[in-house]
Amino acid sequence: MRGAIHMIVTTRLSSSLRPILLDFVSICSPPRNFSIPRRLICAAATKANGGGGGRSGSIVAPPLLTQDEDFQKIDVNPPKGTRDFPPEDMRLRNWLFNHFKEVSRLFGYEEVDFPVLETEALFLRKAGEEIRDQLYCFEDRGNRRVALRPELTPSLARLVIQKGKSVSLPLKWFAVGQCWRYERMTRGRRREHYQWNMDIIGVPQVTAEAELISSIVTFFKRIGITASDVGFKVSSRKVLQELLTKYGVTEDMFGRVCIIIDKIEKIPIDEIKKELGFTGISEDAIEQLLQVLSVKSLDDLEDILGGAGEAIADLKQLFSLAEKFGYSEWIQFDASVVRGLAYYTGIVFEGFDRKGKLRAICGGGRYDRLLSTYGGDDIPACGFGFGDAVIVELLKEKDLLPELGQEVENIVCALDKDLQGAAATVATALRDKGQTVDLVLESKPLKWVFKRAARVNARRLVLVGKTEWEDGSVSVKVLSSGEQFQVKLSDLE
Amino acid sequence: MRGAIHMIVTTRLSSSLRPILLDFVSICSPPRNFSIPRRLICAAATKANGGGGGRSGSIVAPPLLTQDEDFQKIDVNPPKGTRDFPPEDMRLRNWLFNHFKEVSRLFGYEEVDFPVLETEALFLRKAGEEIRDQLYCFEDRGNRRVALRPELTPSLARLVIQKGKSVSLPLKWFAVGQCWRYERMTRGRRREHYQWNMDIIGVPQVTAEAELISSIVTFFKRIGITASDVGFKVSSRKVLQELLTKYGVTEDMFGRVCIIIDKIEKIPIDEIKKELGFTGISEDAIEQLLQVLSVKSLDDLEDILGGAGEAIADLKQLFSLAEKFGYSEWIQFDASVVRGLAYYTGIVFEGFDRKGKLRAICGGGRYDRLLSTYGGDDIPACGFGFGDAVIVELLKEKDLLPELGQEVENIVCALDKDLQGAAATVATALRDKGQTVDLVLESKPLKWVFKRAARVNARRLVLVGKTEWEDGSVSVKVLSSGEQFQVKLSDLE
Repeated sequence: MRGAIHMIVTTRLSSSLRPILLDFVSICSPPRNFSIPRRLICAAATKANGGGGGRSGSIVAPPLLTQDEDFQKIDVNPPKGTRDFPPEDMRLRNWLFNHFKEVSRLFGYEEVDFPVLETEALFLRKAGEEIRDQLYCFEDRGNRRVALRPELTPSLARLVIQKGKSVSLPLKWFAVGQCWRYERMTRGRRREHYQWNMDIIGVPQVTAEAELISSIVTFFKRIGITASDVGFKVSSRKVLQELLTKYGVTEDMFGRVCIIIDKIEKIPIDEIKKELGFTGISEDAIEQLLQVLSVKSLDDLEDILGGAGEAIADLKQLFSLAEKFGYSEWIQFDASVVRGLAYYTGIVFEGFDRKGKLRAICGGGRYDRLLSTYGGDDIPACGFGFGDAVIVELLKEKDLLPELGQEVENIVCALDKDLQGAAATVATALRDKGQTVDLVLESKPLKWVFKRAARVNARRLVLVGKTEWEDGSVSVKVLSSGEQFQVKLSDLE
Repeated sequence: MRGAIHMIVTTRLSSSLRPILLDFVSICSPPRNFSIPRRLICAAATKANGGGGGRSGSIVAPPLLTQDEDFQKIDVNPPKGTRDFPPEDMRLRNWLFNHFKEVSRLFGYEEVDFPVLETEALFLRKAGEEIRDQLYCFEDRGNRRVALRPELTPSLARLVIQKGKSVSLPLKWFAVGQCWRYERMTRGRRREHYQWNMDIIGVPQVTAEAELISSIVTFFKRIGITASDVGFKVSSRKVLQELLTKYGVTEDMFGRVCIIIDKIEKIPIDEIKKELGFTGISEDAIEQLLQVLSVKSLDDLEDILGGAGEAIADLKQLFSLAEKFGYSEWIQFDASVVRGLAYYTGIVFEGFDRKGKLRAICGGGRYDRLLSTYGGDDIPACGFGFGDAVIVELLKEKDLLPELGQEVENIVCALDKDLQGAAATVATALRDKGQTVDLVLESKPLKWVFKRAARVNARRLVLVGKTEWEDGSVSVKVLSSGEQFQVKLSDLE
């Protein structure tokens, strides 16, 4: 199998190696000041290990780098467009994700996940989607085309096909996963974000879309966002479908037309018209299309399309169900909403901030024909994606970000080095009772301990001193009240 | 900046494209039966979008694929060596991760995370480590060398350097993250696993290692694993260091020698000797080294090394602390434990199953000099990694895997299609009260509803019928007892 591994060494050496990333002088010596491009080092590494490397393979390989184990300064920032999550950021992420998960469970959805690295083919679709054009794709050491997932739905579709008849429909699944896009970072957008997805597989009725929107509304309410902050624009791809059919546009152009129309608020209208022209739609049709897209009332739409079509019927049912679910004030019809993914087939919706300052907060819709594009039998399906970026911007703007500090019940400290073992015993006893304990692992002055206690928001300070400990007791100070007492360890709750 | 983006098109076309992956005939037409290698399609995509693609870039790009939106059958399995997590597997993963997280919090550690994709340079270390030789590395669309992280510690070190003086030491951090290795899959090992890490930054004393082992023991106890199932082998890299110094082996060879010795139980002893010979150690030294590695008692070690060195002092303190923490019966000295990572400098330990059937369950140690290899100031540090694979094998073997079903409090169903809106109202009312509800979204016979209720382990079935609903009431059936009653929706708790 060694023959299957080829080197990526023939690409032209790039002059754009980011100088801030790291200085490779001195990784490779002699001579120490001769800089070897990173790609060559890696290619050599690949070769030496037969492209995968087992234990027996690696042990006979010559050392790649020299005996000089010191590397020079590395960029201490995470790769461009990605984030670290130090404790303070992780607390916010956990807070947000817990709301995603609790709402999903409240609605009876089961959690799933998929690999962040998928076969590239899973994401290749007809051109024009921003999400596909920004695919974070690679060639792996086995010359396979792979990609960091840009979204979760294709993986979900893959798993549904795989499960086949072994699962009972409908499936109600949710996931919170990291998604990637390779973008040139010109608009301050990141290359990764986390996305909350909820999907219903196996329900053809609009009740499914209605429930999905209900779950997002529930989420918003839980974190303090109201209907005056946020709304949902709702339409159906069937509106366009019915119009295009009228003008004799073939069905296979449909996805592409939707993607063009999705950009209507982002690029000049003349560009949109030009693009639509490329697809072969007549100028007449384009004009009417654009006119219909500006419609903001279901009644007006009915006047144009007539009352017999599925588009109107679906939308009417959705608005009726919204009332029953109790979120009428959150949604409005807007024909311009089509969403930027090729696979939607019916109802589409997006959450937006009413001040109009932010990008879409979330979006979703029905994708009844996605499975057959992967070779499976079609099953009616719908779902949404909800990213972790715009919502945090909105919460900031509304001053709704929670204050989340570390929370520890006890800080335990020995008053003298010889008692560190005793402090360990005290910490274990408290932890066995389910109490969180930050154990001071070094000999530190009391002043330091109080400062740390304040920083970790400890409720109590437990001090282990010689005299008390001879008696099996410890000193406890309740930090909020200043109350102080001595207690046998066995009695400490 | 477009010039910075180069194509990966000159690599030799591989004959090893996995035929099961997907059939590309019909993605590209005409002619429909002409198969274009995937890499060319991707390269074209990259080019069309200027290697990153913005909205304005992608809209003028010609469609890459034809108007035929249908793809052929795709492989429904996740990429080789990776896993999907359907609901049943996700429940187990959540159960396991929750224990990781709860134990970490019990010990007062704060959660952190880092990007799964890092600059490759972060993981390039002196040769010989299995983890480094199996690096899942790529070249991205901007010609940068990146890698899916094989472990979490380098990212942690990077973040600690970045935070610099803005954080107060010690830091006690934990993370649960996915790690990747590119292996040839010959031993049924996967290419990704999740790893629980706990790390202490800023404590030079052995109290730190002692607490880390205590936290793992606490985890084992919580999931039903006892000291007769699992133990920890403990040693210190200083044992080897002191020996090597005695034989005049230079310090810069140290990491490499440790990596070779780590393979001692995995490959023939003659191979080990040969490898050690390559590093320049004398035959005499090799013989004594191997003899010392077979020592299983601290007293015997002291006879060999003498009592004055740090190795003996550290180990004695650790065993003394183990007693105070209450896990003496879990640990034993074993000079052969050195661990396979180059950066350890002091105490090292690994968890093993006492039946000797499985690979190491977890491992860790002190790495006081890792930060300076990245250009930072050294800070004493130690930590461990605990994977999600071996522990599950062990739990299976001990019949300790929990039975985890879906749990839903209510299943709500309309008895007639016209009442689906009413059922939505009922579901919303219950969810507002914090009750989990699986809402039946279609018209289904009662028999179907009962079957679903059993599958989701619903506690109650709430039926919305015409007569009751006119009165604002619903029928409730408690599924465990069969008890049935009618109740006003407002009174339903």
